[in-house]
Amino acid sequence: MTPAPPLALTMGDPAGIGGEITLAAWARLRAAGPAFVVLDDPRRLAGLAAGLGWDVPIAEVGGPEEAAAVFADRLPVMTLRLPVPAVPGRPDPANAPAVLGAIERAVALAQSGRAGGVVTNPISKATLYRSGFAFPGHTEFLGALTGTSAPPVMLLASPMLRVVPVTIHVSLRRALDMLSTAEIVRTGLALAAGLREGFGIDAPRIAVAGLNPHAGEEGAMGDEEGVLVVPAIEALRARGVDAFGPLPPDTMFTARARAGYDAALCLYHDQALIPIKTLDMDGGVNVTLGLPIIRTSPDHGTAFGIAGQGVADPSSLVAALRLAAEMAARRTKEPAAP
Amino acid sequence: MTPAPPLALTMGDPAGIGGEITLAAWARLRAAGPAFVVLDDPRRLAGLAAGLGWDVPIAEVGGPEEAAAVFADRLPVMTLRLPVPAVPGRPDPANAPAVLGAIERAVALAQSGRAGGVVTNPISKATLYRSGFAFPGHTEFLGALTGTSAPPVMLLASPMLRVVPVTIHVSLRRALDMLSTAEIVRTGLALAAGLREGFGIDAPRIAVAGLNPHAGEEGAMGDEEGVLVVPAIEALRARGVDAFGPLPPDTMFTARARAGYDAALCLYHDQALIPIKTLDMDGGVNVTLGLPIIRTSPDHGTAFGIAGQGVADPSSLVAALRLAAEMAARRTKEPAAP
Repeated sequence: MTPAPPLALTMGDPAGIGGEITLAAWARLRAAGPAFVVLDDPRRLAGLAAGLGWDVPIAEVGGPEEAAAVFADRLPVMTLRLPVPAVPGRPDPANAPAVLGAIERAVALAQSGRAGGVVTNPISKATLYRSGFAFPGHTEFLGALTGTSAPPVMLLASPMLRVVPVTIHVSLRRALDMLSTAEIVRTGLALAAGLREGFGIDAPRIAVAGLNPHAGEEGAMGDEEGVLVVPAIEALRARGVDAFGPLPPDTMFTARARAGYDAALCLYHDQALIPIKTLDMDGGVNVTLGLPIIRTSPDHGTAFGIAGQGVADPSSLVAALRLAAEMAARRTKEPAAP
Repeated sequence: MTPAPPLALTMGDPAGIGGEITLAAWARLRAAGPAFVVLDDPRRLAGLAAGLGWDVPIAEVGGPEEAAAVFADRLPVMTLRLPVPAVPGRPDPANAPAVLGAIERAVALAQSGRAGGVVTNPISKATLYRSGFAFPGHTEFLGALTGTSAPPVMLLASPMLRVVPVTIHVSLRRALDMLSTAEIVRTGLALAAGLREGFGIDAPRIAVAGLNPHAGEEGAMGDEEGVLVVPAIEALRARGVDAFGPLPPDTMFTARARAGYDAALCLYHDQALIPIKTLDMDGGVNVTLGLPIIRTSPDHGTAFGIAGQGVADPSSLVAALRLAAEMAARRTKEPAAP
């Protein structure tokens, strides 16, 4: 088995906590890996380390190949110059070209096979919008860069639970209007494929949530379970997916219930995000399914309020790097059918 | 300080797990209390104990006064004869008069001060409806019996979290339509009063949830936070309640966040129920606020599927009895202003 190449890590918004959690993640991973190369401005990373009094020697490298060789001793950086100096907590649209350039280069490295996968530090959508960025978020931008037509699917994974929301960043009222059998089925198929290919689960068991209290209690509190969810479960089962439900949302995330499935298919953002964050605030990783490349990210934002202080927790980024490396190793070992 | 009188425990649906968890709760509490009297058919309880091989001697008593004296040695029962024998797992509408009679007598005992409070075993709404019962559930029936005009408020309490949903047993779509600033304020005031009087928290801190992902992200994903929730928080603060928010629903139930409040005011059923049940499936207690009497109940249903087998977990009923006794002791010590 060939080891997978190093991962490509993007800078994220340079006014956020991305830089310091990258430095801290390197310190945690330098001995045992996985190796990564960060696409960032080496001057700003060196300044950040110096300001915090952290001993993180930096190596400017030409690509992931070199990164593997130096990783144990120095943090490998592929250089992207920031147009203006980054000030922690003060995002500046003038740096948007570097933020987006890092993502584009990371994707290109993964597509060519030079990087094992892409891990992204948090960006500030509001800041990018002001610079003319036209995508709703990271995930949609990655879909466009890789020429993926169907909307990518967001999986959140922690050691205790994996969840996928069918609708994501829309109001709860709009989520109810958007929900359809077709979308539940499409998301369920992407989830099943992702669990097989990315997590090595041959016959994933997928628990499907109901929408209403007590999953509607046989229609007494809403009919979406019968009208939308049951047909979706039947369609998934007809496609060979071990999906079951609809389950009452409030009892499906207990330890006992979680033992019965590999991932929960949820119908709206907070139905998925409340249980995973309540169980494990810092260990969650965001995985984008449905892209031709591996992509993970920490499950938190730019945290401008604490940026530059060295107090941000790198656990979620470390978990994102480890999970991307595991997924890459699995892909190297078991290439997907052509 | 006078000790509070024994609690009155209702039978619940006699085809459910109420009987066996009552026997098990007595075994757990007989030594240290709190004492209770159960309103049930002593023959069916004796038969249940014999069938399970459990040594639970039963004492027919005339009222809570006698119950306190015998509790350490025998399970005190105030007798209500079942019209037809109870068969575990097979609810029978013919027994509805006894099920409802137990609730009526328990409420009367609490109203007269002979019982410290009411603890209810789970009922089957579907079975009661077939017998002509006209209330949506337990809580509304208790409201009517005690002449309470405003709808009672449901608090769920576990050792890790207290939550109150503003809307309860309605579809998610209907919950969105019903949500109003007035209802959030009314529920928040009942919660603040309940925490003061029932839990002895002088200046309760109440975290108010947003409705949409990320609490709407400043209107980008829904406007209910600005339109409904912020005005409710302002109104509560104007009434002297330490309410704050609206908080992003997915991050407000982490251990770190929970340390900052005494209870979470949630906007719909599963926003409140998912976190509390995910954190602690068996230790949750349902407390009805806004009644003139104390009322708690276990946070689970009749569990017809396992009734009669002796495998049902009595933890939630034990927690409900303990919490009702604590609340009663507090009321005895610090009577509410007239």
